[in-house]
Amino acid sequence: MDTRVKVESLFDLDLWSAQKLSLVEQALDRWVGQSAPASLTQPMRYAVLDGGKRLRPMLVLASSEAIGGNPRAALRAACATELIHAYSLVHDDMPCMDNDVLRRGKPTVHVKFGQASALLAGDALQALAFELLTPADDDLPESMQATLCRLLARAAGAQGMAGGQAIDLQSVGVRLEEPQLRHMHQLKTGALLQASVLMGAATGHAEPSAYRALGDYGAAIGLAFQVVDDILDVTADSITLGKTAGKDAEQDKPTYVSILGLERSRGYAKSLHAQSVSALKESGLGNCDALYALADMIIERAY
Amino acid sequence: MDTRVKVESLFDLDLWSAQKLSLVEQALDRWVGQSAPASLTQPMRYAVLDGGKRLRPMLVLASSEAIGGNPRAALRAACATELIHAYSLVHDDMPCMDNDVLRRGKPTVHVKFGQASALLAGDALQALAFELLTPADDDLPESMQATLCRLLARAAGAQGMAGGQAIDLQSVGVRLEEPQLRHMHQLKTGALLQASVLMGAATGHAEPSAYRALGDYGAAIGLAFQVVDDILDVTADSITLGKTAGKDAEQDKPTYVSILGLERSRGYAKSLHAQSVSALKESGLGNCDALYALADMIIERAY
Repeated sequence: MDTRVKVESLFDLDLWSAQKLSLVEQALDRWVGQSAPASLTQPMRYAVLDGGKRLRPMLVLASSEAIGGNPRAALRAACATELIHAYSLVHDDMPCMDNDVLRRGKPTVHVKFGQASALLAGDALQALAFELLTPADDDLPESMQATLCRLLARAAGAQGMAGGQAIDLQSVGVRLEEPQLRHMHQLKTGALLQASVLMGAATGHAEPSAYRALGDYGAAIGLAFQVVDDILDVTADSITLGKTAGKDAEQDKPTYVSILGLERSRGYAKSLHAQSVSALKESGLGNCDALYALADMIIERAY
Repeated sequence: MDTRVKVESLFDLDLWSAQKLSLVEQALDRWVGQSAPASLTQPMRYAVLDGGKRLRPMLVLASSEAIGGNPRAALRAACATELIHAYSLVHDDMPCMDNDVLRRGKPTVHVKFGQASALLAGDALQALAFELLTPADDDLPESMQATLCRLLARAAGAQGMAGGQAIDLQSVGVRLEEPQLRHMHQLKTGALLQASVLMGAATGHAEPSAYRALGDYGAAIGLAFQVVDDILDVTADSITLGKTAGKDAEQDKPTYVSILGLERSRGYAKSLHAQSVSALKESGLGNCDALYALADMIIERAY
């Protein structure tokens, strides 16, 4: 018997998220830009604090809860994923990349602080992510610290986010087939979303089968997130998005909507959602409420 | 009785460096840009391979030898420090920063591949540094992996290299006093040079007193390196340097030479060299030949 519907009905994602968000915001406020020169602290904090859905941290925390992980390690991992995400936005918005001036409803970092400061703040945020994962004065097992660094570095680097960005750069005005587009998104946004789920799992002791299932869940929601993002780029306005809408079409970038059309894109997002649900069922983990709810939330954004 | 002079006379730095350099070059060739999209692989490899003195890797390997560390861990740490150094050069050369077109006698990365690729390649090189330190398929102890990540992240980030860069940006046309200039350089170049020495030490089991002494050695040669760099900026030509000479004065950046004058700067470099030698003597470590010789080499560049 599938009891998931019943379980879900008892779980309040808004309440759960509000509690977790409060922890994450406080931790980021405490950890970002401390003891750094003021000219670097300001753009770093501007890039990170007071904005964003914190989806990656939520995935880390939900996954850590599912396997009964170490909460302090999970909070550090949660913030580390957000720092990588934040740095990528700062660099991605720069004039030599997407040249975007609006982000989360505010001027982008280079508009506010200049390009040199934006470049450096992004670089420092990436380093800070690995600092957070390797505390000397916390009693997190060093094997856990190493595993978290390994997962994050791979997701951020040339075989992950940065690699996806590079493919994206090459794809402007190019007609991609769906498999190529999927590969790009698996690297560009999927790798870090999946790593967030796996880093949550790495804060405890997941069985190999559960760890694999969480990886499948992360891959599915990672891709679903991007499909939905492409849908929103054509269906939502800039105020709702907090960033410039219609940017992809304007820049002649391939998207799921441009390749599959709007309705088939929505159908694809739904099937990815179903895959994520199926993976969680197979995980054998008991406490997946937040992971189920986050998968729902990701796809419901599109409607 | 001080037997150092005798020991040094038996040590051939050129031979030692050539052997180590060969290992480092092969490892970098193997590790940089593998399995990444070609458009990212090319600028990453261009930025890293076939150039540079590899001073940071040499310091890692020399320090690891001094404490009898794990050679495989040392090679990974050596390459990781070089990747951080290389990424910082790529970003530092960009138009929004120093806007330099020549590096190691070749066009800079953004001149060759465009600014977007330079930005991304730098980002990916930073991530790769942490990937190299956290192999899943190598039998390096995870506690060692975590310690290496901790040292590197701090040296690269807001309280290290990136922080120093931020101060540097703010200092153009500003009259700094020597303590402020020293602080900037301790962050901008000193932190990573010192971390290289400490990472070498972290590949084995250094006694706390030896670890502290190696830290003092690293701090002294780190600052000496920058003082000598400032001296060379006014005394050497672009061909010899492999980069644009006289750049600091042209950009009205404070340097040791502009603050202390040429002769006092040389004197300061000598006293830092003496400090580094003194630290090694106090370390109680037997096999410091390469560390002594590297300290000599750093200061002898100025003459």
